[in-house]
Order: sequence, then C-alpha cells, then structure tokens
Amino acid sequence: MTVQDILKTHPQSISADRDALARCIEECFSCAATCTSCADACLGEEQVRELVRCIRLNLDCADACDAAGRIVTRQTEPDLAVMRAAIEACATACRVCAEECERHAEHHEHCRVCAEACRRCEQACNDLLSTVG
Amino acid sequence: MTVQDILKTHPQSISADRDALARCIEECFSCAATCTSCADACLGEEQVRELVRCIRLNLDCADACDAAGRIVTRQTEPDLAVMRAAIEACATACRVCAEECERHAEHHEHCRVCAEACRRCEQACNDLLSTVG
Amino acid sequence: MTVQDILKTHPQSISADRDALARCIEECFSCAATCTSCADACLGEEQVRELVRCIRLNLDCADACDAAGRIVTRQTEPDLAVMRAAIEACATACRVCAEECERHAEHHEHCRVCAEACRRCEQACNDLLSTVG
Amino acid sequence: MTVQDILKTHPQSISADRDALARCIEECFSCAATCTSCADACLGEEQVRELVRCIRLNLDCADACDAAGRIVTRQTEPDLAVMRAAIEACATACRVCAEECERHAEHHEHCRVCAEACRRCEQACNDLLSTVG
Repeated sequence: MTVQDILKTHPQSISADRDALARCIEECFSCAATCTSCADACLGEEQVRELVRCIRLNLDCADACDAAGRIVTRQTEPDLAVMRAAIEACATACRVCAEECERHAEHHEHCRVCAEACRRCEQACNDLLSTVG
Repeated sequence: MTVQDILKTHPQSISADRDALARCIEECFSCAATCTSCADACLGEEQVRELVRCIRLNLDCADACDAAGRIVTRQTEPDLAVMRAAIEACATACRVCAEECERHAEHHEHCRVCAEACRRCEQACNDLLSTVG
Repeated sequence: MTVQDILKTHPQSISADRDALARCIEECFSCAATCTSCADACLGEEQVRELVRCIRLNLDCADACDAAGRIVTRQTEPDLAVMRAAIEACATACRVCAEECERHAEHHEHCRVCAEACRRCEQACNDLLSTVG
Repeated sequence: MTVQDILKTHPQSISADRDALARCIEECFSCAATCTSCADACLGEEQVRELVRCIRLNLDCADACDAAGRIVTRQTEPDLAVMRAAIEACATACRVCAEECERHAEHHEHCRVCAEACRRCEQACNDLLSTVG
C-alpha cells in the first residue's frame, strides 16, 4: 500500500512504532472495504433475515475502521488520546463483527473471509495500542 | 432533522433514551460538517502555519463524529459495546478539538463557532452514554 | 446549521451563490443522515427481502451525499470540475433513491420521509449546479 | 485485498467485468488512504502555504474515492446510473488532484507517490466505465 511509501517521506517524526502503525493503517482500510463488501453480500442472500445483525455490525465496523484508518494515518501534530480512542472503537467494532461473522462462516464464505479480516484488524489495533504510550 | 422523524417510525424498539439519542445524532452530524468547514477556513487563513494542529484535530473530529453519527443512528440489532466505544471516541475528539479551537476563538470567528459545536456534541455524547446501560 | 455561520466568516471568497451553497451543504449532510437511518429502518422490517434494493440505494445515497457535502463545504481553492462532478453524483444518487423510496412510501413511513429528504437534496444540488459557472 | 475474495463468493451476479471491477475497488480505497496521507504530509511541511490547494484537493479526492469505493463494492441490486456518476466524480477528483500533486512531485516525494496513486485510480475508473454499459 502506498501509504507506507508516504510515511517514509513524511516531514514529521512518526508518533508510534512504524511497523505497527503501517500495519494498523493497512488493516483498517482493508477491513473497511471488506466489511462493506460482506454487508452487501449478506444483503444479497436469500436468507437475509438471518443476517440482519451481521449486516448491521458490518456497516458499523466499516465506519469505525474508516474513521480509525484516517485518524491513524495522520502523523502531523497527532493527539494520543484521540488516536487511542479511535483505535479502541475500531478494535471493539472488529471484535464484535468478527464474533457475528464467525457464526455464519460455515454457511457463507464471505462471512468467513470477513471474520478473518476483522480479527487481523483487531490484532493490528491492539498491537498499535500497546506501542502508543 | 428528518432522522428524528424516521426514529419515530422505526420498526424496532430504540436502544436508548429517545431524546438523548436524537440530540446525539443531530450534534454528531452537525459537528462533522462544522469541523470540515473549520478545517477548510483555517486552511484559507494567511497564518495557516499557526493553525496546523487545529486543522488536524478538525479533520479527526469530523471523522470521529461521522462514524459515531452513523453508528448511533442505526437502531436495528445494536451492540452496546460498539455504540459506547464509538460515542467515547467521538466525545474525546470533540473535547480535544474544542480545546484547540478555543485557543484561536478570539482571532478566528470560525474557530469560536466550531469550539461551541464541539462542546455541544461532547455534551450530547456524554449525556447519551449516561443513559446507555 | 453552524456551517452557515462559518461560511459567513470564511477568509476566502465563496465559489458560488451563498444561499444555494448553504442550502446544498445542509441538505447533503441531512440526507446522508436520513438515508443511513432509512437503510437501518428497512433492515429492521419483517419484509426486509422486499426492501433489499431500497437498503442498497440508501447506502449509496448516504455515501454520495456525505462526499458531496464535504467537498462543497470546502471553499478554499475549490476546483469547479471536482465540485460539479461530486454534486452531479449526489443528485443522481438522490433521484434514484427517491424513486425507490417512493415505491414503499405508502407502507413504510420512513421511506416516505426519506424520499422527501432525497428530493430536497436533489433539488438543492441542481439549484447549486445552475449557479456554478 | 480480501474484497476480491468476497466478490468471488457473492450470491448475486456481478454488474461489470470482474477484473476491472476488482481493480477499481482496490485503487479507490488505496487512493483514499494515500490522499489522506498526502494531505497530512503537506500539512506538516514548513512551506504549507504553497501546498494549500494540494491539501484541499487531496481531501476532496479522499472523499470522492471513498464514496466511489463503497458504491462500486456493492453488487446487490446495483443501479448503473448511480455507479457511473460516482466513478466519474472519482475519476475527475483523481485527475485534478494528480495534476496538482505532479506540480510538487519534484520537491515532495509524498506528492510524487500520491500523483501516481491518483493516476492509477483515474485509469481504473475509466477502464471500469468503459465496461459498464
């Protein structure tokens, strides 16, 4: 992802462990896209009624990941409290969405793929949190 | 705001105090717009270099408010942990952005207006949090 | 909406008719919220399967309105081609979403409210387009 | 990107050439992240005043890419007019942002990287448009 190339040439010093940061940014944007896609695939299933909670949590997770991805990407004059709260909100949304997707993973391949993306993003958020003061 | 009209006819029971919910939704979307506008007005100031931190926090606050506004608006199968974390992230971004805007309120009317919008949204978030289990 | 207060104190000259601009900004952010809410209300209906297309278009419209609202709000060094294309995308999403919501307006009050919000936003976009060179 | 894995298992037929679609989705989300990062890197430069137009267009491009990325990702009951308008708005924002970033590419590596991301996304949007009816 080209965000990593930009972080390398960023005029300011970086607020966190560079690898943990780059991984968190990448997982946030990737998970936002994946959850948008899983919500849509669930909506297209005949058994959509059984997937209502999954769709709802996918939409929440996409929004939380998108906000965290944008906030964490910014490295000019960051505020650690804002950054930390956004990452925590993202990790929570990822965890809850993963739990729901895992319940449907056997029947819906898109839920299996999405659960994995959410777990990776949750992990990347927690790893970054542990390196931020 | 028409979101309130929709909440009145929503097929599901509402997860929180209806007035606190409606006010939080309205303040989140309004604050997202106001912070987007203040970031842009700061960017257009001759002294933009003194407003770099303000722009940055405005952008963060717009993103946190937008995510919280969308998540809190959804009332079908809500997850309280996801909702709470999103509101907390929003309240934190609003508080920190308000503190910065207040520092420039005397010189820049847009920062004064934005600081007030952030404080109202912070309050609405905290009020909603106190009614959510 | 406080965006209008900020536009009044914006350091740069405004790129369009001020009233048409303020109204378009307000309708875009309001319609984004309303479509997010209508998608969620549709998702909570027992007959969700009949509302799949409505949910999908609501989600699209929320995203198009949000992007247009943010882009049009910015008045520092605007690019008219970018602004125009964003407004056109928003007007298209509003028109198509309104047409679908109107089909369900008799059975679902939230669709009736949402259709009206979409039509107001479509109109505000078209009015602004007619004042932008 | 895992969105491609989900498209493979999507319950509905896909509305466009699958490769062009997957590439457009990937470039939209990647370009949104890259533009968010370039806006922030520009904001952190000492010569921020010379980069005001670049920052502004980066922010617009991030929003247009994010909206198009979400809309194009959805394959359940798509509306071609909505899809086309969103892709056109994205391609326009990418083109204009690339032109501005290219002007700074010699002095700012982040602008060089961002210009390339915008050109790739513009191309992917135009390629997808040519396959959509």
